[in-house]
Amino acid sequence: MKIGIVGGTGDIGEGMALRLSHLHEVTLGSRDESKACATSDCTIETLKGRGIISHCKGVSNQEAVDAADVIVLALPFQHVRATLSGLTGFEGKIVVSPVNPMGKKGHFFYDQPEEGSAALYIKKMLPESARLVTAFNNIAAHKWKELDAVLDYSVAVCSDDQEAKKIVMKLISDLPNLRPLDAGPLSSSSIVESITPLLLNIAKNNGMRDVGVYFR
Amino acid sequence: MKIGIVGGTGDIGEGMALRLSHLHEVTLGSRDESKACATSDCTIETLKGRGIISHCKGVSNQEAVDAADVIVLALPFQHVRATLSGLTGFEGKIVVSPVNPMGKKGHFFYDQPEEGSAALYIKKMLPESARLVTAFNNIAAHKWKELDAVLDYSVAVCSDDQEAKKIVMKLISDLPNLRPLDAGPLSSSSIVESITPLLLNIAKNNGMRDVGVYFR
Repeated sequence: MKIGIVGGTGDIGEGMALRLSHLHEVTLGSRDESKACATSDCTIETLKGRGIISHCKGVSNQEAVDAADVIVLALPFQHVRATLSGLTGFEGKIVVSPVNPMGKKGHFFYDQPEEGSAALYIKKMLPESARLVTAFNNIAAHKWKELDAVLDYSVAVCSDDQEAKKIVMKLISDLPNLRPLDAGPLSSSSIVESITPLLLNIAKNNGMRDVGVYFR
Repeated sequence: MKIGIVGGTGDIGEGMALRLSHLHEVTLGSRDESKACATSDCTIETLKGRGIISHCKGVSNQEAVDAADVIVLALPFQHVRATLSGLTGFEGKIVVSPVNPMGKKGHFFYDQPEEGSAALYIKKMLPESARLVTAFNNIAAHKWKELDAVLDYSVAVCSDDQEAKKIVMKLISDLPNLRPLDAGPLSSSSIVESITPLLLNIAKNNGMRDVGVYFR
């Protein structure tokens, strides 16, 4: 599978490249292509040091979209509009949103967009044929990159496109110990997104680190 | 501790009596006092069969409020207004809301009240001195009553009253394997409540039963 990561130089992008680029072709996109190349080089070196061959490449965000079957929007909510408005070519492609709109007033809160969720906000910006899937929202960002940390979480997946949902769930199960779960239609994304500020508050209030969620 | 359960003849009320009445005085309230007495008798008999002495009593909802230090509103959201408008005496008492407003249109969804959450809706109906705490929202209702089923979930607890929150967290830790977690202020209740329809969808879509949530 060809995975393109828009905003690929952040924790999620780099982590996904580290954990998936031996199985899939991963193109890491960035506004600044040289940063994407540096992240990609670093990924290749890290995996080489472990005797693993990485199929990872640093490109522009637009090239990451163009090269991919599955595009991951690894962006903070505040950068979504500016980034997406400069990109084209999402027609017919699977687009994954791990985006969580959050704010902080003493505690973290879910900063719900007017559209109902980041997913529905993004949907309005994409062409109708784009196949939007919510996934990977509740994984502590920097844990992606700690290759020796076991990512043994549940991953709630929402979409109105059943086939796209299945493809993303299969991709999630390529990451050992992550458990994909069909969490319903795209309209359920707000619940999944809102769990992330809850996890941050639970971590802060109970002296915990990198709190994840498990449904079982 | 004296625990009063309003709506005590449902799964949560009966389950709490079964699991807590050897440690605490539990008064089970109901609109129909004879039903509360039958549930209470059944609880006492069940525990007696296991060699356990139960401190459980069936009463009216009003008596359950009057007798208790901690009052649990074990009510479906739709019955909250009618029930609370007929009751008095919440002043200064700890009131626990496990209430989740939900709807179903093919899938389950969080039917968010105008006030933002069931907790904030309930807050408006209680006297200002009542000490409202959100807890027990995400435990599969009928699992409470299966005494041999291990309730090994996380329980997110929200309140603006830090002392009341601590008392409820202590009460939760009296239930072996339940893990109370400080999930922030009362305004975070909407996130906790909304997890319940998500759990129901995850169960339905993935062929699972009695799905619970764990934060760790």
